[in-house]
Amino acid sequence: MKAIRVHGYGQPPQLDAVPEPKASRPDDVVVKIGGAGLCRTDLHIIDGWFAEVIPVELPVVPGHENAGWVHAVGPAVEDLAVGDPVICHPNPTCGVCRACRTGDDMRCTTGPNLPGLTCDGGMAGLFKTNARAIVKLAAGAAPAETAALADAGLTAYHAVKKAVPALGPGSFAVAVGAGGLGHIGIQCLKAMTSAHVIAVDSSEDALKLARHCGADHVVTAGGQQGEQVRELAGPGAGAVFDFVGEDSTISDSIDMLCPGGTCYLVGYGGTVTLPAMQLVLGEITVAGNLIGTRADLEDLVMLTAQGKVVLHSTRYPLEAANDAIDDLRHGRIRGRAILSPG
Amino acid sequence: MKAIRVHGYGQPPQLDAVPEPKASRPDDVVVKIGGAGLCRTDLHIIDGWFAEVIPVELPVVPGHENAGWVHAVGPAVEDLAVGDPVICHPNPTCGVCRACRTGDDMRCTTGPNLPGLTCDGGMAGLFKTNARAIVKLAAGAAPAETAALADAGLTAYHAVKKAVPALGPGSFAVAVGAGGLGHIGIQCLKAMTSAHVIAVDSSEDALKLARHCGADHVVTAGGQQGEQVRELAGPGAGAVFDFVGEDSTISDSIDMLCPGGTCYLVGYGGTVTLPAMQLVLGEITVAGNLIGTRADLEDLVMLTAQGKVVLHSTRYPLEAANDAIDDLRHGRIRGRAILSPG
Amino acid sequence: MKAIRVHGYGQPPQLDAVPEPKASRPDDVVVKIGGAGLCRTDLHIIDGWFAEVIPVELPVVPGHENAGWVHAVGPAVEDLAVGDPVICHPNPTCGVCRACRTGDDMRCTTGPNLPGLTCDGGMAGLFKTNARAIVKLAAGAAPAETAALADAGLTAYHAVKKAVPALGPGSFAVAVGAGGLGHIGIQCLKAMTSAHVIAVDSSEDALKLARHCGADHVVTAGGQQGEQVRELAGPGAGAVFDFVGEDSTISDSIDMLCPGGTCYLVGYGGTVTLPAMQLVLGEITVAGNLIGTRADLEDLVMLTAQGKVVLHSTRYPLEAANDAIDDLRHGRIRGRAILSPG
Amino acid sequence: MKAIRVHGYGQPPQLDAVPEPKASRPDDVVVKIGGAGLCRTDLHIIDGWFAEVIPVELPVVPGHENAGWVHAVGPAVEDLAVGDPVICHPNPTCGVCRACRTGDDMRCTTGPNLPGLTCDGGMAGLFKTNARAIVKLAAGAAPAETAALADAGLTAYHAVKKAVPALGPGSFAVAVGAGGLGHIGIQCLKAMTSAHVIAVDSSEDALKLARHCGADHVVTAGGQQGEQVRELAGPGAGAVFDFVGEDSTISDSIDMLCPGGTCYLVGYGGTVTLPAMQLVLGEITVAGNLIGTRADLEDLVMLTAQGKVVLHSTRYPLEAANDAIDDLRHGRIRGRAILSPG
Repeated sequence: MKAIRVHGYGQPPQLDAVPEPKASRPDDVVVKIGGAGLCRTDLHIIDGWFAEVIPVELPVVPGHENAGWVHAVGPAVEDLAVGDPVICHPNPTCGVCRACRTGDDMRCTTGPNLPGLTCDGGMAGLFKTNARAIVKLAAGAAPAETAALADAGLTAYHAVKKAVPALGPGSFAVAVGAGGLGHIGIQCLKAMTSAHVIAVDSSEDALKLARHCGADHVVTAGGQQGEQVRELAGPGAGAVFDFVGEDSTISDSIDMLCPGGTCYLVGYGGTVTLPAMQLVLGEITVAGNLIGTRADLEDLVMLTAQGKVVLHSTRYPLEAANDAIDDLRHGRIRGRAILSPG
Repeated sequence: MKAIRVHGYGQPPQLDAVPEPKASRPDDVVVKIGGAGLCRTDLHIIDGWFAEVIPVELPVVPGHENAGWVHAVGPAVEDLAVGDPVICHPNPTCGVCRACRTGDDMRCTTGPNLPGLTCDGGMAGLFKTNARAIVKLAAGAAPAETAALADAGLTAYHAVKKAVPALGPGSFAVAVGAGGLGHIGIQCLKAMTSAHVIAVDSSEDALKLARHCGADHVVTAGGQQGEQVRELAGPGAGAVFDFVGEDSTISDSIDMLCPGGTCYLVGYGGTVTLPAMQLVLGEITVAGNLIGTRADLEDLVMLTAQGKVVLHSTRYPLEAANDAIDDLRHGRIRGRAILSPG
Repeated sequence: MKAIRVHGYGQPPQLDAVPEPKASRPDDVVVKIGGAGLCRTDLHIIDGWFAEVIPVELPVVPGHENAGWVHAVGPAVEDLAVGDPVICHPNPTCGVCRACRTGDDMRCTTGPNLPGLTCDGGMAGLFKTNARAIVKLAAGAAPAETAALADAGLTAYHAVKKAVPALGPGSFAVAVGAGGLGHIGIQCLKAMTSAHVIAVDSSEDALKLARHCGADHVVTAGGQQGEQVRELAGPGAGAVFDFVGEDSTISDSIDMLCPGGTCYLVGYGGTVTLPAMQLVLGEITVAGNLIGTRADLEDLVMLTAQGKVVLHSTRYPLEAANDAIDDLRHGRIRGRAILSPG
Repeated sequence: MKAIRVHGYGQPPQLDAVPEPKASRPDDVVVKIGGAGLCRTDLHIIDGWFAEVIPVELPVVPGHENAGWVHAVGPAVEDLAVGDPVICHPNPTCGVCRACRTGDDMRCTTGPNLPGLTCDGGMAGLFKTNARAIVKLAAGAAPAETAALADAGLTAYHAVKKAVPALGPGSFAVAVGAGGLGHIGIQCLKAMTSAHVIAVDSSEDALKLARHCGADHVVTAGGQQGEQVRELAGPGAGAVFDFVGEDSTISDSIDMLCPGGTCYLVGYGGTVTLPAMQLVLGEITVAGNLIGTRADLEDLVMLTAQGKVVLHSTRYPLEAANDAIDDLRHGRIRGRAILSPG
């Protein structure tokens, strides 16, 4: 089958012919890919950011945001039939450690075990994961159109869900970045809270998408965004979701908070640099967010089935992976880029 | 009356003779000081750290951690009689803004209104505050012995209380710094949770006090404290309370956390410098903590009355304020330094 | 001025001429009534249900759900000007007890102090309360149209707010009773959660209103409502709000719950009769709800200002109070009945 | 092997010779019983209370509170070796339904699947469960001494854990019933909260045990227990745990609550009969409790290993099961009765 593979850090990945994966272990599931999302994390992988943190043997197939149809299952897998449309949670978990036993899927002690990073992912014709990672879609669903839920959507939902109790009527929530994650986060905020939602982005196209997704206010990031948010939000926002996570967006995000507020850090390219006094006097919280749980993914699939979350994506054939990567690097993608094998 | 006053930043405060405060407004309360705690924040005030953040007209009487006996009350004050032993919440609040209406005392919108910082504090014979700031002590209580509850204790309690739901059996909590705040925090942790408590300090005397206060383990801060905590706490601690808040203790504190853990930042002299990736991959939270609510102070007075929290303090006469300041700067104080007028 | 007064239990109240109230105490506020809501509780008062629980001296002016314009204020009242449109929280609180200090307005220890029950309420030209009970409306607001927020709306909001964390995507919430409280509760559920909302009522008119308010499903209460809800909600609803609270609605409400679900009991005419085994095996919670806090009322006023909650009411002149009472007794009112002095 | 079996409702169970269970399915685990606790639920089973609610084919071996040593495992079981001391969670779960995925073990959708009720339990030489139900004990642990954690302890812990956030300093918690469950609940309350703990029981022996377990106050249940609790607890207790659950204890328990308090219903022989008005005016919550999760059991095993919870039990040989049953029916057991095969 065809697969996109990273052969060396800092080099463009290549389209290779590789052997098909088999459902060899009892709970293996092989999925025929309908679509694999392209994520900023894929750029970080290609650029070698994880080389020391999470070592991996190259070449590797990227793609941790996968949806498609069941292609083959191991002998212990019940409840899944060939052809079922499915979406894949990005962390295939063990099911028996305390984290798994309490629904804390991202902290399964057998990990890190992340397809697309520590083993082959879904930018290919077929993709192998395990039964615990599978969430069924409704009969007739189009997997490519939902693939972006598996990481971008899941991460945005997970962060928003934490903030729900703090976002009562009259509160303000800010989405910094209205791209692949942000446009889903905005919709989750509108579906699950009564907060006023402000979207901040440097791209007018992204802000147009944010409006379309329900943002009550949009602010162009041009250096004055902190002040502009404060003009709208009075004492500041109770929750700021930094979907970008660069040095400057992090410090801007903190500046947008009201006393007692929380900055949910989702993007992770930058560095948090803050005088402790600022955190203490404002009683500010900075909360890192790592993807989400399988229950979160089920919830999000439900919101999408209800029409409360609509994904915006740009489709590319698998062969055009490097075009998609280039477009993502240069901020030319509206919503999420999805790669689909022919 | 006698009062310690800061006349210029960077200079030792002086003992002055000043006029006595009067209970002029309807809800004023003048307290005859039994003891006023000396806090690292007082050093910061003297050193001029707040000069730009919270401007104040000098000279000012420091002392935001006050207990004593009611000396005089304004005409609208009921329920307080001259001679009642009392402790003073450090923020005299308005009672009508939304923050006050919801019990969020530190965020009263009339503030910052902090005796010892923006107006005269309690390092004096008498001290003026308002009725809402007063918590009664049990009849016969010795105010000087409880003064340290009003800020050191309150701040430690407030941070510990946030962590209670996360500190179930088998969890680990770390107190970084076992001085004025830390020795109270350790006792609160033991009284309110079933977590294993680890104390970290560079001073052997402080660690001896920590043991006495109930710490299950002590670790000498000598460069290896992160590793030593991990050896005790397996995957790391669910909660680390950084009562010191210097550059190095902050980064050490983050390193002690388990995935999903929270660092409660209490001390505030340093700077948080963290790659966003570390916060995101570990799903780490950094939570600033600003003193506490009046309900927190009542709770803590209750814990003290029950004998579950015992304060350790070193007494100085008001005249020896600069000795106490010097001892605090050089880490020579066990527990909290308390200044008492003669 | 004119006022409706209860002279004896079991007798229709009368329209009397009575002296005007004065703003005699420092924090008194006299409100010129724009509208006073008629509540099932008023029927209970008239019928003498509270005679033993909360004794009161007759005659008394009913009306605990009041909105209007500031008419006069006591000397200590700032921030309120004559003519300001306002809505009145039903419990004028003391501001200094622990309940008040923590935002728990309904449990102020000076109570029960409920206008319309223990002292004169708002079914009159003027109504006296205190400054802490006042929430300002937007300039130009029409108080009569918002009066129903002060108890019906507040109670519904308070119960719904408790349930928010449990009502994620895919969950089901049931409003039993789609009248004065229920039609507001349905809108709060839609504004603050992503739950599917089912309305249950025996009146087709009420169900039409429920649909209009956003209910996703309606069920006619005709004996099979438990089964019908289960057909819609699979394992049952996570939250059932019993706005009626008669013997039969309570047991029906419990039957609609999924394992682990909660019945929020708001109406209170009936008796809860449940085998403990049913509560234990289903791990069911039954939660009583008593009106709400002042912060809740502010939040709800905000939801109304945003157009997320729209009140449906039927207006009666004060003189027609007994017609309104009769219509409420016989289920002929759509939304809430509001009495307005001429 | 020998086993106690119920042959007919209302008849004393018999000691029979039965075939040994085999580890036939991949995740089966057969445990050599060290001790099986005798629970009030066993009396209910014998008396046929569950005959209609949860039908079962007789004869059945009772015993849902089991600990012992691994005797044999199915082919898919890793991490367990023959001879390991273990305790068994009472609900062997599937691991893949949403309840299992979120740590909500008692609501696994494959249930009810309760050994000792719907299939053979542990009052026998050997007992079959599955790997997900097993919690390892420390090497060298004596299983018979911990068996009572598996249901009595787990249930008490689960209810107490829910109450932890509400039980701050100065609060009151009441344990109604200081027997098999209550004596563990009291210790959990002391280990995990700073509440004052009041034990209520009609047996002086039980109250002596309660004192020994750390209860701050004991009250003899003789008709005045509601008033006596109120004398101790001022406005009432924030949490009452009704470990008995008879008609009269339920209504007494409700009477002991402060406004806003919660009655945790654990015992389940009686009927809740309450005017809705009492629940609403007091804003009272009645919360059913069904055993607990596997994570709860791990936590409780940890508390026991730390010496914070010590079990009090009375041992009987398996052959004396009917003596134990008789003693339990007549309130003659101190702590928990444990049956051990020879």
